[in-house]
Amino acid sequence: MTNRCDYNSAKAYTLAELAAEVGAVLRGSPDVEIRGIGPLENARPDQLTFLTHNRFIPLLNQCRAAALIVSPSFKDLDYPLLICDRPYVALARIAQLFFAPPAIAVGIHPNAYVESDVQVGPEAAVGALAHIGAGSRIGRETRIYDGAYLGRRVRVGEQCLIYPGVVVLDDCSIGNRVIIHSGTVIGSDGFGYAQDQNGSHLKIPQLGTVRIDDGVEIGANCTIDRATFGHTWIQRGSKIDNLVHIAHNVVVGEDSILVAQVGIAGSTRIGKNVVLAGQVGVVGHIEIGDGVRVGAQSGVPRSIEAGQDVSGSPAVPHREWLQMCAGWRRLPKLREEIRQLQRKIDELEKKVHGE
Amino acid sequence: MTNRCDYNSAKAYTLAELAAEVGAVLRGSPDVEIRGIGPLENARPDQLTFLTHNRFIPLLNQCRAAALIVSPSFKDLDYPLLICDRPYVALARIAQLFFAPPAIAVGIHPNAYVESDVQVGPEAAVGALAHIGAGSRIGRETRIYDGAYLGRRVRVGEQCLIYPGVVVLDDCSIGNRVIIHSGTVIGSDGFGYAQDQNGSHLKIPQLGTVRIDDGVEIGANCTIDRATFGHTWIQRGSKIDNLVHIAHNVVVGEDSILVAQVGIAGSTRIGKNVVLAGQVGVVGHIEIGDGVRVGAQSGVPRSIEAGQDVSGSPAVPHREWLQMCAGWRRLPKLREEIRQLQRKIDELEKKVHGE
Amino acid sequence: MTNRCDYNSAKAYTLAELAAEVGAVLRGSPDVEIRGIGPLENARPDQLTFLTHNRFIPLLNQCRAAALIVSPSFKDLDYPLLICDRPYVALARIAQLFFAPPAIAVGIHPNAYVESDVQVGPEAAVGALAHIGAGSRIGRETRIYDGAYLGRRVRVGEQCLIYPGVVVLDDCSIGNRVIIHSGTVIGSDGFGYAQDQNGSHLKIPQLGTVRIDDGVEIGANCTIDRATFGHTWIQRGSKIDNLVHIAHNVVVGEDSILVAQVGIAGSTRIGKNVVLAGQVGVVGHIEIGDGVRVGAQSGVPRSIEAGQDVSGSPAVPHREWLQMCAGWRRLPKLREEIRQLQRKIDELEKKVHGE
Repeated sequence: MTNRCDYNSAKAYTLAELAAEVGAVLRGSPDVEIRGIGPLENARPDQLTFLTHNRFIPLLNQCRAAALIVSPSFKDLDYPLLICDRPYVALARIAQLFFAPPAIAVGIHPNAYVESDVQVGPEAAVGALAHIGAGSRIGRETRIYDGAYLGRRVRVGEQCLIYPGVVVLDDCSIGNRVIIHSGTVIGSDGFGYAQDQNGSHLKIPQLGTVRIDDGVEIGANCTIDRATFGHTWIQRGSKIDNLVHIAHNVVVGEDSILVAQVGIAGSTRIGKNVVLAGQVGVVGHIEIGDGVRVGAQSGVPRSIEAGQDVSGSPAVPHREWLQMCAGWRRLPKLREEIRQLQRKIDELEKKVHGE
Repeated sequence: MTNRCDYNSAKAYTLAELAAEVGAVLRGSPDVEIRGIGPLENARPDQLTFLTHNRFIPLLNQCRAAALIVSPSFKDLDYPLLICDRPYVALARIAQLFFAPPAIAVGIHPNAYVESDVQVGPEAAVGALAHIGAGSRIGRETRIYDGAYLGRRVRVGEQCLIYPGVVVLDDCSIGNRVIIHSGTVIGSDGFGYAQDQNGSHLKIPQLGTVRIDDGVEIGANCTIDRATFGHTWIQRGSKIDNLVHIAHNVVVGEDSILVAQVGIAGSTRIGKNVVLAGQVGVVGHIEIGDGVRVGAQSGVPRSIEAGQDVSGSPAVPHREWLQMCAGWRRLPKLREEIRQLQRKIDELEKKVHGE
Repeated sequence: MTNRCDYNSAKAYTLAELAAEVGAVLRGSPDVEIRGIGPLENARPDQLTFLTHNRFIPLLNQCRAAALIVSPSFKDLDYPLLICDRPYVALARIAQLFFAPPAIAVGIHPNAYVESDVQVGPEAAVGALAHIGAGSRIGRETRIYDGAYLGRRVRVGEQCLIYPGVVVLDDCSIGNRVIIHSGTVIGSDGFGYAQDQNGSHLKIPQLGTVRIDDGVEIGANCTIDRATFGHTWIQRGSKIDNLVHIAHNVVVGEDSILVAQVGIAGSTRIGKNVVLAGQVGVVGHIEIGDGVRVGAQSGVPRSIEAGQDVSGSPAVPHREWLQMCAGWRRLPKLREEIRQLQRKIDELEKKVHGE
């Protein structure tokens, strides 16, 4: 099975060039030409690979890669090396050199449906069966892939990738270098109703929009609702995995990580550098401080101060949660201990009262 | 950033007209013209806003709105007021006056793909790149937005909004005034297999359909599976948030609320006016009585009688769950208490037996 | 309300033919013609139905079906019967005889968008507004329904059903007899970043693909990410419900069942014949052995050996979890018991020390 790398290997860099690019120390022949990157077990002789743990060292016998990206702790390995402090960062940067996003012809495809008053920047692309609503603006080098849908008055910045099947509804705005994966819906109505005296739910029209800032990536089949008023806001550099739900008027701060299937209820503010692990739920109208980390499947019922690690449903400080989990497993034993104490006390009472 | 309201402000109503519309007492000049609605902090002088809590009163200094919608408890505020018993209901009704759903031209767009024997009612619209299968019926004033997909023999009633990217598969039927948001799939196959003697799973064809009644709203990227036989049924007025899963043969009663990422397994019946909070899971083949409320992330393993509030996974009565949560946090202390009792008993035993 | 069966009833089989087909013993007239299958309460006189539990026997009074599919325990019922050891398997097989998937004309629809170098096998179909990228291969009798999207160099085997709104991105490969329901995305980027010294997340390009083997069925609005390198792999015969998330480099073994809203983090290996119930979350880089069953909403934080049943978050052996749940409910009583012991000890101490 081929990697996508194999289709994008027109480019070649020498090991010396790559070491310079990522600030690595090179142990090996500087002029070897590299044309891609691959996993340890089947990288080609013209590819780089990486080693992150001692347990993979035995695999080096069969490894055919031209060199390894490693941290300084592996500097004495008998293999050509690129040694650097942050090997994952180096891996990311080098992989980006070789990677090209899915190909698409520059310009508006004749099978696209584009309404009036649309501006498409230089080197931008709009694919077949894509839809661009009236009044929308698409920045330079942005790719609206085949079958994506933009509503009216949508703004998309520069160098974005909007994958097939994405839906961005009217009036939403998207910054530069944003990636949105297939099936994600931006700007669906927030979930807001007023209950009348008969128990019926009257829809509160959702008049706001969604704003997504530079460098955000959003996975597949997510939903980001438009605000009741104002905007739902995903700030610079945040990364959102698949099937995540973000309700109306939520704010997600810079460089935060939302893992798959997270749900955030309305008007909650998530700080910077927050990590919400998979399937976490956060109630509405609270604040999650900067740097907070929430364990997988946790439920967050109230605001959390900056820097805390929490887990559980309802979430408690992570250490306390570990104790709780241990406590749960000891519960049957605890009951037994109490019964034994009960028996001992009964005997003591007999003794004492008997005297 | 503009609100969608700003694009829909051709209409104007006097304060007196709006007060009459929602049965409010007006404190202020009856002839002021209102052209929209906005949040307290940035509503325009020709817009209404609303006040729901004492803590927002200080913001009134900078508020430029023409008047406030308030409950009677704020009747003495020094600001033009619309006083009514249910301010959220008034807000919803007034916002609906000003709101128009996304614009679309009446009739069938020349870039739509419409099969044979399709009926489209008066004032209805079918957008570009939309797909209408053979034998489908679309009621008056219904909007099938660009890029939505209806299969064959689908019935959609009057005044519905079917957003871009919605998929309604063959033979499903949708009532009047139903709203379905982007990416939602209606009528995918239910998850039904019979395991043979080799452990293989044989597909049980899903021969039923989905029926959605009047006034239902369904969020983005939901999935509502068709029944094995008969129909999966969402009854009048229920509101479903994003990324909700409803399995085959489920019935959801009238005016129920299903918050984001809820999942309901096959053949379960949800009553009227039920609230399932975010990420709740409900097993198959049970009944949730009318008016039941289930707390966020709860798991419901068995039927619940009408009127109960439950929480937890597995769900227990809500009060009991609160006690359980408190008990979990005290578990380490409980162990310490037992250890202390143990020591005291040891000492007592020494004393008593030593005598 | 009609069943889809009613549109597919051109075929007819005698009871004798159907009994032979599924290896059942026939009690009844062998020549009765059957044209479909329906539920006990409203099957037609030319349809079969099935009975699975004693409590449905009273309904037989009104039943009009031609015969019942039953297990041997019902062999003495006074009704025409097809008696077989695995009635659900017989039901599945017979229903498959009558069922036809949604109709679509063979060949490439003139409104499809098909790029260069695409091969479409004999009797295969590509619907209106479907998109097939350059270099893709579609096997014989496969149906790419209207509005589905295949990227470049995608391979789809024989007799597959790819429903409207499915997105299969570049270079992914799909086996034979695979069914993918609407809104599912195959081959979105895995969620991989390297954090630099400033806290920014650098994207690690996802260079791998997704491989889906024969006989797999995938529900609606799922997401299956492409691998970082190599491939994410769903093996033969596994069945995946709606809104399931499968991260990069996950392997799902043969004949496993993933119920709705399950999420599996990166590089985890799921064995054969595993069952993950609804809303289960599994962390990355672990192994779930063959035959493991995980209860609904459980969170799996570490590898599980073959054959285990686990539940809870974090998951523990299922029996232990049942004890834990019981223990939780007794926690308030436990506290009370400890307080009583405390009082008794206090009294004893007074007595003993007072002496």
